[in-house]
Amino acid sequence: MDVSIIAIGDELLIGQVIDTNSGDIARHIAPYGWRVNDVQVVGDNADEILRAIDRAFESSDVVLTTGGLGPTKDDITKGTLCRYFGGELRHDPSVLENVKVVVAKRGLRLNNLTAAQAIVPTSCRVIQNRVGTAPLMWFERDGRVLVSMPGVPFETRTMFREEVMPMLLEKFASDVAIGHRTVIVTDWSESQLAMHLSDWEDALPPYLHLAYLPKPGLIRLRLDGQHSDGAFIESELTKYHDQLLSLVGNTLICDGDKTMAEVLLDHLRRLGLTIATAESCTGGNIAHLITSIPGASESFMGSVVAYSNDVKERVLSVDGTTLAEHGAVSIPVVEQMTRGAIARIGADCAIATSGIAGPGGAVPGKPVGTVCIAITTPTGTVSDTFHFPGSRDRVIDRASTVALILAIKQLRKM
Amino acid sequence: MDVSIIAIGDELLIGQVIDTNSGDIARHIAPYGWRVNDVQVVGDNADEILRAIDRAFESSDVVLTTGGLGPTKDDITKGTLCRYFGGELRHDPSVLENVKVVVAKRGLRLNNLTAAQAIVPTSCRVIQNRVGTAPLMWFERDGRVLVSMPGVPFETRTMFREEVMPMLLEKFASDVAIGHRTVIVTDWSESQLAMHLSDWEDALPPYLHLAYLPKPGLIRLRLDGQHSDGAFIESELTKYHDQLLSLVGNTLICDGDKTMAEVLLDHLRRLGLTIATAESCTGGNIAHLITSIPGASESFMGSVVAYSNDVKERVLSVDGTTLAEHGAVSIPVVEQMTRGAIARIGADCAIATSGIAGPGGAVPGKPVGTVCIAITTPTGTVSDTFHFPGSRDRVIDRASTVALILAIKQLRKM
Repeated sequence: MDVSIIAIGDELLIGQVIDTNSGDIARHIAPYGWRVNDVQVVGDNADEILRAIDRAFESSDVVLTTGGLGPTKDDITKGTLCRYFGGELRHDPSVLENVKVVVAKRGLRLNNLTAAQAIVPTSCRVIQNRVGTAPLMWFERDGRVLVSMPGVPFETRTMFREEVMPMLLEKFASDVAIGHRTVIVTDWSESQLAMHLSDWEDALPPYLHLAYLPKPGLIRLRLDGQHSDGAFIESELTKYHDQLLSLVGNTLICDGDKTMAEVLLDHLRRLGLTIATAESCTGGNIAHLITSIPGASESFMGSVVAYSNDVKERVLSVDGTTLAEHGAVSIPVVEQMTRGAIARIGADCAIATSGIAGPGGAVPGKPVGTVCIAITTPTGTVSDTFHFPGSRDRVIDRASTVALILAIKQLRKM
Repeated sequence: MDVSIIAIGDELLIGQVIDTNSGDIARHIAPYGWRVNDVQVVGDNADEILRAIDRAFESSDVVLTTGGLGPTKDDITKGTLCRYFGGELRHDPSVLENVKVVVAKRGLRLNNLTAAQAIVPTSCRVIQNRVGTAPLMWFERDGRVLVSMPGVPFETRTMFREEVMPMLLEKFASDVAIGHRTVIVTDWSESQLAMHLSDWEDALPPYLHLAYLPKPGLIRLRLDGQHSDGAFIESELTKYHDQLLSLVGNTLICDGDKTMAEVLLDHLRRLGLTIATAESCTGGNIAHLITSIPGASESFMGSVVAYSNDVKERVLSVDGTTLAEHGAVSIPVVEQMTRGAIARIGADCAIATSGIAGPGGAVPGKPVGTVCIAITTPTGTVSDTFHFPGSRDRVIDRASTVALILAIKQLRKM
């Protein structure tokens, strides 16, 4: 089943808000064999919305809109939907009741603008929004469906997963089985890997497709299958997935679709080990990536973000002479930082970073992007110096990913 | 000038990659009076791309495409552009020279797939990609322009700002002046604020428009102006911006468009103070948000991420009796954490968080989403307990923002 998405809101077109809803919907519908055919991002403008709906129904029987439903004046979606599907805008007491409950839960008072959210087109079936005040609206015409959902990611995510998708699955039964296998590899450029897999990829049967999804430091390979026979496509995916695993060999960093922080935590749990981080240039980002994973507290003990030499010395026990001789961005310093973190935080392993994220801070011989990373585990310490291109954000992002990959490489040997 | 964007790539439609390029382009062109009229996200499919180009030229004279240019087989954009604009695909020696330079800079060897990037349509003018291997392509027809750019955000961002936009500005001179003013306020729900501003907003002249951009814990208000007379619109924006400032009063958290971490650092610099963080449930995210800002090292000293009670006691000197009596998620504990961070890290101020980010970890009386936050500055300590709805990510995100806002509120009084 093909789905078209229309993301509505001036804030999306001026770049003040990024549309994360479409990706979230896409990830959720994939296991059901559904796919997003296209996404259109349009402003709060009736003509643009109408044109987008026409276009969406050209390619899909299911159209999902997100956004354009807030209580303030820059939202005009509801009137436009009424114009498209007919009927009139009318007050719906059941929506007002629901809005009252949601507003009360938030400890707020109902005001006129929030109450106005109870005005809905008579041509729609209302889906009460349990986690926000804007009602969801289900429209049908000629067997095709448009569902209007709010733009707040948490509301869209909750309501789409728990209410809208089950209703869509009930209405449209899928006749094609779909499946995926994802493996994540490291130590390749995209083109090197593509050359390596070229013969195998050319010989893939027509119902299988390989996609390359490169990220800094790693490449996700996704094998997609689509066939009328669900059992057949599953067994084919298993067979070709096994072949792919043997082709990538020990460049495999994860068999499945996980973040590097998840893979790290898996290894720590398997080994019964704990970890800490000692971060200078990554500024707490590695700790943040690890603690974003539910259950991280089982293996992650804590972190010292040592942004000054003084903190490196006093809290992480880095030797003042080493700092003076080699500079803060040096292999001896990051190695000492791992040992200091292990002692101070109380953990079995540690990751340490020190580098120049930019735009300022470069010193002779150490340009912006220079990052030293060390990993200490019960089997010893490894360290290396890297040069990452790009902006401050990119250097931080990349250094964090590479540090996690280095730690995973050490742990998977154990 | 209206611009239409086409973001190309199956990875965008399955939600494995989020399109951040369109927002970045939108933010960059706004000050020139240019705007993104619509964004279409399509897969690596020739028919979809052709249809998207037709649609884009319906509404805009400038069409920018991103993505679909990698060296691997799931990219078909180049052939499709050749089909649309005519000519044939031919090897361009100047592109190969550039690819060789870029590949050498990365310390990699040129392989056949990377070399294939030198095949370009004869109907385009090539813009050499200084930061990647995929060449940019400038097509013209009937005075309208399509520029094909790579999908890697760093490459798109660099090349669009430094090469493409200057070329576009040279070709198309703008005749309408545009301007913005952004203010950020806190302590309002969107609808409460809209009611408060209702009369003023209704009386705005037709060339001014107010947009509400709510984020957890704060609302951005953007006043947009558009007029043929640039000096006039600037003076009008200044006048109405002043009115808006007096209407929002002391709920103003920032006069301008900045992140909360930037606002915090501004206040610290103004006061000549330094700060540290002591993070439990936010897991280093506050430190990460602060250190993402260039120049943070001037005011940010470091952080202790204390994910276990043991680290809270040993590194942050939280009293064991207090932990036992009140629990880790309590006001006395976060207050002690701020003082421990100030002493251990060596800073004038500290932010501390302790809470239950979920999905596990709830205890009687403290459901998932309960977060205690304390701020200590030279003028004293403030603290509060919050209940944030939603998923783990959302609780972490929201607690981090609220902690930054609380710290800003304390500092702006000084």
